[in-house]
Parts: sequence; C-alpha cells; structure tokens
Amino acid sequence: MSEIEPLTLNHIAALVGGRVRGDGELIVEGVASLHEAGPSQIGFLAAKRYVRFIEGSRAGSFLSSAAMERFLPEGAPGVVVEDAYSALRTLLWHFFPEAVVPAEVHPTAVLGRGVRLGTGVRVGPYVVLEDGVTVGAATRIASHCVLGARSTVGERCVIHPHVVTYADTVVGSDVTLHAGARIGSDGFGYTVVDGAHLKIPQVGRTIIEDGVEIGANATIDRGSLGDTVVGRGTKIDNLVQVAHNVRIGAGSMLAALVGIAGSTRIGAGVWFGGRASAINHLEIGDGAKVAFGSTVMRDVPAGETVSGSPSRPHREQMRRQAQVGRLDKVVERVQKLESLVS
Amino acid sequence: MSEIEPLTLNHIAALVGGRVRGDGELIVEGVASLHEAGPSQIGFLAAKRYVRFIEGSRAGSFLSSAAMERFLPEGAPGVVVEDAYSALRTLLWHFFPEAVVPAEVHPTAVLGRGVRLGTGVRVGPYVVLEDGVTVGAATRIASHCVLGARSTVGERCVIHPHVVTYADTVVGSDVTLHAGARIGSDGFGYTVVDGAHLKIPQVGRTIIEDGVEIGANATIDRGSLGDTVVGRGTKIDNLVQVAHNVRIGAGSMLAALVGIAGSTRIGAGVWFGGRASAINHLEIGDGAKVAFGSTVMRDVPAGETVSGSPSRPHREQMRRQAQVGRLDKVVERVQKLESLVS
Amino acid sequence: MSEIEPLTLNHIAALVGGRVRGDGELIVEGVASLHEAGPSQIGFLAAKRYVRFIEGSRAGSFLSSAAMERFLPEGAPGVVVEDAYSALRTLLWHFFPEAVVPAEVHPTAVLGRGVRLGTGVRVGPYVVLEDGVTVGAATRIASHCVLGARSTVGERCVIHPHVVTYADTVVGSDVTLHAGARIGSDGFGYTVVDGAHLKIPQVGRTIIEDGVEIGANATIDRGSLGDTVVGRGTKIDNLVQVAHNVRIGAGSMLAALVGIAGSTRIGAGVWFGGRASAINHLEIGDGAKVAFGSTVMRDVPAGETVSGSPSRPHREQMRRQAQVGRLDKVVERVQKLESLVS
Repeated sequence: MSEIEPLTLNHIAALVGGRVRGDGELIVEGVASLHEAGPSQIGFLAAKRYVRFIEGSRAGSFLSSAAMERFLPEGAPGVVVEDAYSALRTLLWHFFPEAVVPAEVHPTAVLGRGVRLGTGVRVGPYVVLEDGVTVGAATRIASHCVLGARSTVGERCVIHPHVVTYADTVVGSDVTLHAGARIGSDGFGYTVVDGAHLKIPQVGRTIIEDGVEIGANATIDRGSLGDTVVGRGTKIDNLVQVAHNVRIGAGSMLAALVGIAGSTRIGAGVWFGGRASAINHLEIGDGAKVAFGSTVMRDVPAGETVSGSPSRPHREQMRRQAQVGRLDKVVERVQKLESLVS
Repeated sequence: MSEIEPLTLNHIAALVGGRVRGDGELIVEGVASLHEAGPSQIGFLAAKRYVRFIEGSRAGSFLSSAAMERFLPEGAPGVVVEDAYSALRTLLWHFFPEAVVPAEVHPTAVLGRGVRLGTGVRVGPYVVLEDGVTVGAATRIASHCVLGARSTVGERCVIHPHVVTYADTVVGSDVTLHAGARIGSDGFGYTVVDGAHLKIPQVGRTIIEDGVEIGANATIDRGSLGDTVVGRGTKIDNLVQVAHNVRIGAGSMLAALVGIAGSTRIGAGVWFGGRASAINHLEIGDGAKVAFGSTVMRDVPAGETVSGSPSRPHREQMRRQAQVGRLDKVVERVQKLESLVS
Repeated sequence: MSEIEPLTLNHIAALVGGRVRGDGELIVEGVASLHEAGPSQIGFLAAKRYVRFIEGSRAGSFLSSAAMERFLPEGAPGVVVEDAYSALRTLLWHFFPEAVVPAEVHPTAVLGRGVRLGTGVRVGPYVVLEDGVTVGAATRIASHCVLGARSTVGERCVIHPHVVTYADTVVGSDVTLHAGARIGSDGFGYTVVDGAHLKIPQVGRTIIEDGVEIGANATIDRGSLGDTVVGRGTKIDNLVQVAHNVRIGAGSMLAALVGIAGSTRIGAGVWFGGRASAINHLEIGDGAKVAFGSTVMRDVPAGETVSGSPSRPHREQMRRQAQVGRLDKVVERVQKLESLVS
C-alpha cells in the first residue's frame, strides 16, 4: 500500500464534506474499524453498537457521524459528517483503489465466431466466449467465465471468475457479477403428459439492467415465454434464486438466500431481507419491505412492511406473536372463571 | 429464426390435436405471451390471470385452452385444445428447435486414461474427464465441466457449463444437468472424538436415474455408506441441497432452494414447493405435497398435503392459523365474562 | 479394490478398540450398511432405526455399538465397540484409502508472478494461481480452481474442482474446500446516496483456520472493514452463506442452506441445523444449538437450544406450539362459560 497517498484531516474533510476536529494537519494513512485501527489510521464510528470499542481503540483519529460525535474522547481529532457511510465509501476508494487489470485477451481464451470486444476489454485465462458474444468497452471478464452464444455485456462491467451466462443473455453496463453466478439458466417449467413431467422449452431471455450487482452462486433463470428482468441498480446477494419471468424494478435489494418464484413482479426500491421468499405470480409494490426469513404468499401493497410465514403486515404479525405469548394468562383466566361459575 | 418453417392454424391444430377457430390457412410465424405477441404470432392463453392481457394484445391469433376460450375476442382466429401447456410445448419445440452442436472433442479437453466416449459425443472447451470416465452416445458436455474418475454418463444427456461430478458418480440417459450443479460431493458426516469433529469418509455414490433434470448450482451429496439416489424423471430446481443417502422416487419435483437432510426417503410423484425442507431420516410417501417454505419434521403419509413450520396436514395448519387470528375475540369474550362474574 | 488388505475380526477389534464376538479369525473384506453388506463384509449397526434391517441382512459379521448388541442375531460374529461411528471411520479409511494423487503442476495451469508452491503440491488442469499466491506442502488443488492474488493456502489441504478464492484470502492447513465454494466474495454493503445504493468497497479478508471443511457451492464473504473468520475445525455444509465480518469460533457446525448475516458472532462448538439462519449483529454463545429451519433474531446465550421463527428457547417454543394446538379446547370452555353465565 506504500503507493497510496496519505491524507491530512483537512483533506479528508474536504473529500467527504465534513468538519475537522482538532489538528487539521494530522496525517492519516488509512481507515479501519475502531478495534483494528492503529495510530496512523482514522477509526470509523457510525453506529451505537460500536461505541464500546472506543475506549480500547488505538486509532489516531476518528471518522464519526454527527449523531455519534458525543461518544468520542474529549478533544480527539477527527472528521465529523452527516452520512458517515458515504464518507467511509469515499475514503475506502482512496485508500484501497481497485487493482489495475491490463486490457488483454489471455491467449488461452476461446473466442467463437463473430465475437465483438470493445476497447480496453480484459478477458482472463480459460474464458469461453461463444459465437456472437458482444462485450462493451472496459469490461473485465475474469478466469473461467463462459458467456453463451449471443450474450451481450455492456461497458465497465466486472465479471468475477466462473460466471456462466446462458445463450442470449443481456447484461447492461456497470454490472458486477460475482463468482459462480448463473444467468439465464432454464426455468422450472414442465407439463404433465401421461403422468410424466415434460420440459417446456424455456425460450425467453434474462435481462440484467445497468448498475446491477449479483452475488456469488446466485441463479437468475431465463424467461419461459418472455423475459426475466432485473431492473437498473438492483443489488442481489449470494445464493439468491430468481425464477423464470420474474421482473424486479429499479433499486431493489435482495439479501442472501432469497428465493422469488416464477412470474412474481417486484417493484422499485423493494427490500427483501435474507432468506425471505415469495411464491409465484405475486405483485410486490414499490418500496415494500419483506423482513428477514419471511414467506410472502399474497400480494404486498406499495410501501408496506411484512414479516413472518405466511407474511402479514408487520404490526399484525407482532400482535399475533404477542397474543400467543399471553395464552398462559388467558387459560388461567378461563380456569378462574370456571372455578367461580361452577 | 428465418430458417424456421411457418405454420398455418390448420397445421398447428393437427400438431397439437386441437380445433381451429376462424381461417385455418392463417400463417403463424411464432408463439409468444399475449402481451408480447405480434400480428404474425399466436398468443398463448391458459390461465385466468392472463385474461387481462387479451384486450391490449397484438397477437394475430390465439392458442387457448378450452376453458379459457370464452374470453377470446369474438371471431378471433386461433387453435383451441384441452391441455394448452402441452400444446405450447409442442409449438415451442417447432419454433425454437435446439441448437445443433457439432459432435467433437474440443482440442483443449483433457481426457484421462481409459476414458470411453460413445458416438456423437460433444466435449466442449476445457472439459476435464478424469481416468475411467464413460460417456454415452449423443451426450453433450459443455465448457469447463469436470467429470471425476470413473463417473459414467448415459446417452443423450445435456451437461451445461461448469458442472462437476465427483468420482464414481452414475448418471443415466436423457439427463440434464445445469450450470454449476455439483453431483457426488461429500456428505456432512462427522464423528466426535475427544471433542473434535472427525470426518467419516463418504464412500457411497450418487446415482442419477434416466430423465432427471437438476438445476443450476444444486448440490447432490454422495452416500456415506450406500448410495444417494434421484429417481427416474425427477426434476430438481436451482440451489437445491440433497444430502447423503437421500433416496427420491420417480417423477418427483423439488423446487428451488429445497433442502433434504440425510437419509430421508421421498416417494414417487412427490412435490416439494420452493424453499421447503425436510429433516433427516424421514419417510415422505408417494404423491405427498409439501407446500412452499414448509419445514417437514416428521413422516408424511402417501398422498398427504402438508404446510407450515413445523409442517402439519394443510387443513390443520390453516385451522391453527385461523384460531390465532381470532385470539382478540377470545380475549374480549373472557373479559366480558369476567365483568359479568366478578 | 483388490489391493485392499482383508482383515480378521481380531484385527478389526484391535484397530477400533473393540471386543470380538464369535470366530476372531473370520475374514472381512469390507464394511457396508446392513442392507447392502454381503457375506464377506461386516455390516454396520449403531442406531435403533436400522435394527429392522438386521433380519434381511446378508452381512457375514456385524460392527455394533454396545448399546445395540442385544439386537444382533444370537451367536452372530462381529466386533462390539462403545463408539461405533469412530470405529466405522477407522474401518472406512482402511477399506477406502484416499486415492494417491501425483504431486505435479499440470502443464495447463496458469501461474502468476511470485507464486510459491510447497513440496508435493498437486495443481490440476486449468487451475489459475494469480500473482503472489502461496500454497503449502502436500496441498492438492483440483481442476479449474482459481486462487485470487495473494491468497495463501496452508499444508495438506484438499481443494476440489471449481473453487474460487478472491484476492487476499487466507486458508489454513488441513482444510477441505468442496466444489464451487466461493471464499472471499464481496459482502452486501451499500450506502444510499441520492436514492441510489452505492457499493462500499469490501476491503477486509476472509480467514479460514486450520481443519475447516466447507461444502459445495457455499459462499463466505470477505470482511467489509476487518475480516470474516471461520474458526479452527469448524465444518460448513453445502450452500451455506456466511456474510461479511461474521466470526465463527472453533469446532462449530453449520448444516446445509444455513445463512448467517453480517457481523454476527458465533461461538465455539455451536450447532446450526439445516436451513437455520441468523440476522446480523448477533452474539450466539459457545455451545448453543439452533434447531433445523429456525430463524435467530436475538442473541443466544451460551449452551442454550433455540428453535422456531423467530427462535426462542426450545422449551418455550414447544409450549407455545402446544398452547396453540389446544386453542379449540379453550374456545369450547369459553363457550360453555358463556352459556352458564348468560
């Protein structure tokens, strides 16, 4: 990391739009969590649960949210900002710049007929680009990826090792696909003929819009008829399953192990907590929130927060849980009544 | 797609065993969903939830189930069948024939000693076939697959990129394995000695019978002693886990993210909805149905439908849910009694 | 298997620390489950549920736990031990010794600058070791693995095909990584700026300590700031997700499809049953047990067993379930009271 330029607190405050505490000329060589930061680093404080680490911290200065500033040691130098996570992000890009990957097509890559590569594309060892694949400028495709026939990938994408796109997949620009993601696999579509499940050909596509990130070993099936669509800027975590013909709007978040069954439509800005799931053919409205582990079995109106299995509006779910918890008391009251009445 | 032969409605009716509405000589160049079909295509209608798309549809004709025909525009041309999904399947194979993949062993494939390949086998770039692997006629093995030592694969299989079979795996004929499926990985078997978990060697095999399809990134563990078996024609979706020594009968369906723990036996024609799971050492009888998201913790008799976590017969589960929903009322009634009695 | 040395019952008893029943010179050529063992094999009996297989068993002798010995046919030869699973493990290593893999670097492997390999390392076909990777003595890296820049792997590890480690991952000695495991992928960390989710660079590492085993297609994210740690001897099953900055102590067990959300700390000797999960920022104490399918939403004290969703102490959960099951009765009693009072 010796090539990274140190920053003064004044520099940092200017970079992140913050206010300096103490000596603005103090030099900072890195950013770290409170319990890991050393004297030359700025320690990060943005949530109450980390306040307990302040006392033992060896950090030479602190990057704090305004809300947490009152917990800092008196007179401790640092930078205070409204949105500490955005500031952290800025500092991390400074102190941990992305590795520069040379633009080259590794000699072991196998390119089919009619493959088109934009300028500055990196194609790693053992990558297979099948016939008719198109890759936009400055996209990096790591080792062992297989892009199926006629797949198109936009510009500035980062495709980690071992990603597979099936034929005819469409990936936008500024997309990140993590190791082992499978994009465009067949949907789970069968019809029963004489008692046997016969496969319905899955002839739609998968469309991944600009700015999407898809986690390691996640699977996004192609459409059956028509397409599966992951909207602009949506983030999908590891081991998520998105079934055929699902449509997800812009800026939604699906945490790890989420499963969305076929043809369900998810609006914009929706949040699915880890291991939540939804059955098929539902409508989940814009801005809805599905709590960790919930099972959605009916439509969710825009803006609603649901929880539980089957999921219900969160308040109702809480009320039901509380009522079950008080059942002892109800039974006692009934017993008392019985003793009085009989 | 210009090489695909267009069909008249009369042709289609003959192909799918249906009845023509309107002009039987009308030419159809493709099949699509109602909201995506254009004037030269036949739009597909088989479920009530898609009736709302009829009004805006640009489809030039309609492929409809008999049950839905009454929703078609008056006089609209088309073909009507009893089982619209089977008819769709037939038309899709016509309009989207599978790509012809040349039978060849790519020069980058690594073949161990004693590998035997049937006629017409396709082995893609960077495939590794370890010592003693056998592959049946007309099977296609896509890029980057690794078949472990002595694995055998039957005829006419389609093995998508990045599949791994561990040593001694047995795969039947007409099997489809999707990208990233892991067949024959070690079961989760340990014994505790002096407080440490020591691995019990997993020396059984995984046997995948004819006609099975296994989804992307699914994992099917080998047996510990004895084998793990997936029965003829069973379909397994993405990200499913089948643990060691599980035995699944013929024609069962396991939707995405299902997990079956060790040694559980699943009968024939069983349905597991998405994200359902079963603990170890259970018996799930033929034709049982496990609802989406359920957790099966005891044996399920043949033909029963269960739901919930822990799962119960579906009616009982529904009754319990309803009773909890009426707890307010019960508490009110108790209060009223108390006011009367005291 | 003809090269495997047969054993007499006397030999077996000496190997496993057991007691001989019947003819100690009886020759045994293998070990198998009761229903699969033949006359030259010793059948395995350690649990009551397998007693029913004794009658039809063709096994020539029996390896039985002391507790199960009374179910053996009168006079049947065999070996009796206290801990039958440990004895089984010993016999399996004898009858199914690990294949000897030659120490070689396959000519198709791609090694970056500064890669260091210990003695006796095996590097399989199409492996990619990026710049600065270090691999300890006697470690075996199977086909198609990609170890990211500066990853270090200890001695005697077994890395199955298609494993990916991201840059800077640290793997100890005696570690087993199964096919498709992704170690060090980015955590799901974003900050919202002007309504868009912007990625927070994930700059921590993943540290896998000695003796860990990680299942097929599991994903272990790198830390955001600071590290994700999987402690010594911990075993992780297939399709498990471990999020950024999770820390797991020594000797814990996470069964298949488990998901642990960000920054949660799991103690030593903890058990997570299949498909269980925990939300972020929790503390799960040493020796805690989380039942199959449970959703942990608050801290769990050391030694406690929890179940359900949301999880509760197991007894409390059972009591709640039972109370809901008796709701019919409560309603009947209230009705009776109403009829008496009104």
